[in-house]
Amino acid sequence: MPESQNDTGKKNRTYMSKELTTRAENYSEWYNELVVKGQLADHSAVRGCMVIKPYGYALWENMRDQLDKMFKETGHVNAYFPLFVPKSLFEAEEKNAEGFAKECAIVTHYRLKTDSENKGKLIVDPEAKLEEELIIRPTSEAIIWNTYKGWIQSYRDLPLLINQWANVVRWEMRTRLFLRTAEFLWQEGHTAHATKEEAIIETKKMLDVYAAFVEEWMAVPVIKGVKTANERFAGAEDTYCIEALMQDGKALQAGTSHFLGQNFAKAFDVKFSDKENKLDYVWATSWGVSTRLIGALIMAHSDDQGLVLPPRIAPLQVVLVPIYKGEESKPVIDAKANEIVAALKSLGIRVKYDDSDNARPGWKFAEYELKGVPVRIALGMRDLENNVVEIARRDTKEKKSISLDGIAAYIEKLLEEIQQNIFSKAKAFQQDNTREANSWDEFVTLLDEKAGFVSAHWDGTSETEEKIKQETKATIRCIPLNNALEPGKCILTGKPSSQRVLFARAY
Amino acid sequence: MPESQNDTGKKNRTYMSKELTTRAENYSEWYNELVVKGQLADHSAVRGCMVIKPYGYALWENMRDQLDKMFKETGHVNAYFPLFVPKSLFEAEEKNAEGFAKECAIVTHYRLKTDSENKGKLIVDPEAKLEEELIIRPTSEAIIWNTYKGWIQSYRDLPLLINQWANVVRWEMRTRLFLRTAEFLWQEGHTAHATKEEAIIETKKMLDVYAAFVEEWMAVPVIKGVKTANERFAGAEDTYCIEALMQDGKALQAGTSHFLGQNFAKAFDVKFSDKENKLDYVWATSWGVSTRLIGALIMAHSDDQGLVLPPRIAPLQVVLVPIYKGEESKPVIDAKANEIVAALKSLGIRVKYDDSDNARPGWKFAEYELKGVPVRIALGMRDLENNVVEIARRDTKEKKSISLDGIAAYIEKLLEEIQQNIFSKAKAFQQDNTREANSWDEFVTLLDEKAGFVSAHWDGTSETEEKIKQETKATIRCIPLNNALEPGKCILTGKPSSQRVLFARAY
Repeated sequence: MPESQNDTGKKNRTYMSKELTTRAENYSEWYNELVVKGQLADHSAVRGCMVIKPYGYALWENMRDQLDKMFKETGHVNAYFPLFVPKSLFEAEEKNAEGFAKECAIVTHYRLKTDSENKGKLIVDPEAKLEEELIIRPTSEAIIWNTYKGWIQSYRDLPLLINQWANVVRWEMRTRLFLRTAEFLWQEGHTAHATKEEAIIETKKMLDVYAAFVEEWMAVPVIKGVKTANERFAGAEDTYCIEALMQDGKALQAGTSHFLGQNFAKAFDVKFSDKENKLDYVWATSWGVSTRLIGALIMAHSDDQGLVLPPRIAPLQVVLVPIYKGEESKPVIDAKANEIVAALKSLGIRVKYDDSDNARPGWKFAEYELKGVPVRIALGMRDLENNVVEIARRDTKEKKSISLDGIAAYIEKLLEEIQQNIFSKAKAFQQDNTREANSWDEFVTLLDEKAGFVSAHWDGTSETEEKIKQETKATIRCIPLNNALEPGKCILTGKPSSQRVLFARAY
Repeated sequence: MPESQNDTGKKNRTYMSKELTTRAENYSEWYNELVVKGQLADHSAVRGCMVIKPYGYALWENMRDQLDKMFKETGHVNAYFPLFVPKSLFEAEEKNAEGFAKECAIVTHYRLKTDSENKGKLIVDPEAKLEEELIIRPTSEAIIWNTYKGWIQSYRDLPLLINQWANVVRWEMRTRLFLRTAEFLWQEGHTAHATKEEAIIETKKMLDVYAAFVEEWMAVPVIKGVKTANERFAGAEDTYCIEALMQDGKALQAGTSHFLGQNFAKAFDVKFSDKENKLDYVWATSWGVSTRLIGALIMAHSDDQGLVLPPRIAPLQVVLVPIYKGEESKPVIDAKANEIVAALKSLGIRVKYDDSDNARPGWKFAEYELKGVPVRIALGMRDLENNVVEIARRDTKEKKSISLDGIAAYIEKLLEEIQQNIFSKAKAFQQDNTREANSWDEFVTLLDEKAGFVSAHWDGTSETEEKIKQETKATIRCIPLNNALEPGKCILTGKPSSQRVLFARAY
């Protein structure tokens, strides 16, 4: 693009502000900068709470809509339950309460009044104290199972397959945009079943839905597994999870699906009569993914130039940038651009023609690279005369001159190719960074020098798991599903083990 | 349907539990029962908070998706801002703060601890008191304008056209499902503009979007107008509204769009530099509709048999019920039903074949009537032999035998006809119940004996408006847009007036 190479002065100036700390320099800093400069989210005036900016929210909408479709295809319906959980309900399931008690926001009053000592200021009205405190839901099992009690009498009322899209609050001390925020957006499925078997099938089915979504739409490969007792959801009998690997070799739990047994049914006295009219407690599952997935997405694919977004969930899949000197060529380029945009839109492709005159092409190139738009099309006069355009892929940074004939079909295919390429790259990374350790020294060396998943033997006790965590900061991410049985010795204690489990340092 | 007339025993029994208080007996009771029996919402364990059940939430999803589409078509994008507003931000815009201070939920602590005196119980940890209290957003102007301060520097950053879908909390003392709940779901648009004119145009544009949505999708006719100073949103310069009329003759404010002037920009010091590099405060609008609309929908159209839902937003548009004796005819009916379902689905129609064997046809008829499904198709063997089905409209309760040839196209047209009919009926009701009063006696008599909108002269003062409210419980719903100027005398004071305004008792 000779036309674009003229504006290096402006380009350099504006590139400066877009420049990111590199991953090699400081991975953590790179992430923090990218979330903000990539226009995904901002810190807010409220400790630990984020503002999800329009570009970040559009990404979340695409993820949410696809997940919602998958939930509905598997027979689930949406509903909405209160934000608040009265303290007496919150504490009903003891383990769940204990798990969340230390990090919950509590509403104690329902009115402010004017401060007689400070004009224009307000104070909490001590006379408006609630009789019973309200906990802002950190998760909704308590309020939902208290509601289910009124909905379930007979086996005919089962299964209940309900999902909720909502905000939840967990008062985390150390927060990071998307990865760990005091308030976050998520979905939580809460199902009720007549039998244990059916509930376990549901738990695993939703894990499969999560894995399919994260791999096929977010292009992030995951390991499906089950958590050890130490890492289980508070109140669950079993927690299934999908674990992803970030580019710095740390693991990230991307979604969990819990088999809750009859714990919540017992805590809230939810019984049903079966076909033989016998009463039994209801079996439960719950499962959730959150805006944390956006953090995983960023850390799995992005590079030192910015975001790399998989086409299937990218808010914008294609951007067209006109390159011209002199106003007289603009109408010619506009006409062709509008043609291409219409052709792409007719294929359902999310496309934008950025002909704004407040930035030069070089600035726009950097901007869309930072924002991870999968395909950029540059439209210059000379190219158009030759019936071609320049196409740049965000994932490989490859540029190609492509004929305008059949350009829309070409782009459609290219987007699919980019989706697959991003996944393949991440999959290769995951495989390259999953290693076996057969001794303590090897285990520690791998963690320190290579990071990634370390597959090793463990004696199956919580004590050993805890000791390993204290010594190395590595946790058991999961016992992979369909794990090969292989006798061996625990890397720490040397005690016998029947299978390897997956360790990693994690987010 | 001779086949269905046999099961009167069961029908009577099950009809009983479905029976509603009639509107004539007790309108308010009828509404409360209908919301619960129609499976839209339930009361929850939290004072004033509702559970939106799957059927009610599906209705909300249809409403939300259409509104969201209309917002996006008018150039808006979605974002998400924190649930919490620190008290110091909450009080920054004085009128807004004053307007909501008396009804807000306040978070004061962030941790629970075990109660040493009561095993298994939790208490608020006094050591985990927040330095600054957090208000749960009753509306988000404060947190959003505090954020906009960081986003807006120059005219190039304007306009900002942002919408948020969220839950908000207003601690109302007297609550009713959908109409007035402590927590509710809504959308709130918050836009920022360089000029006053542009902000006013935006305010009116969004009022038009609301009016179009409520009339064309919810089939509820509305009056567009502007509120008097007394009825204005706290912190607004002008509040525009759409007012709907319920079947009991009471008005319901269905949506509001506020021109906020520079009030919030001044409170949060949000300035921009214009093209001449001069600094000025930004101009603002905000606009919202909520789950309250579902209350309006119910009260505008439903009847003593249950909900009447406009096809465009009905979760289910068509239900097919098989009617047969003996298992041998079931496969024949199933085959035809599946054919019809496929044909309807291919036209994008939301349809369900209810062949569940745990209820008789009569029970199902009553159930879907209660739930307001616009079209019911009964499939009996004798009908099928004659190549017809029986089609029942929910709105008129009319039944017709219709040829199976071209049935899908017939239904598609019928749904549109039902949509129009529901609107026309409500529109006629609104017109019949809008009356002029030219004296105080006439005004009071109309309010007491006819209810509805009363169009009358008013002297333009807040004092008179307040007196009228105290004496009659009627408020000025709005000064209609494009109101005809007509000199007259105030019904209360006899002072001169230049136009009539619209009074009503209201929800």
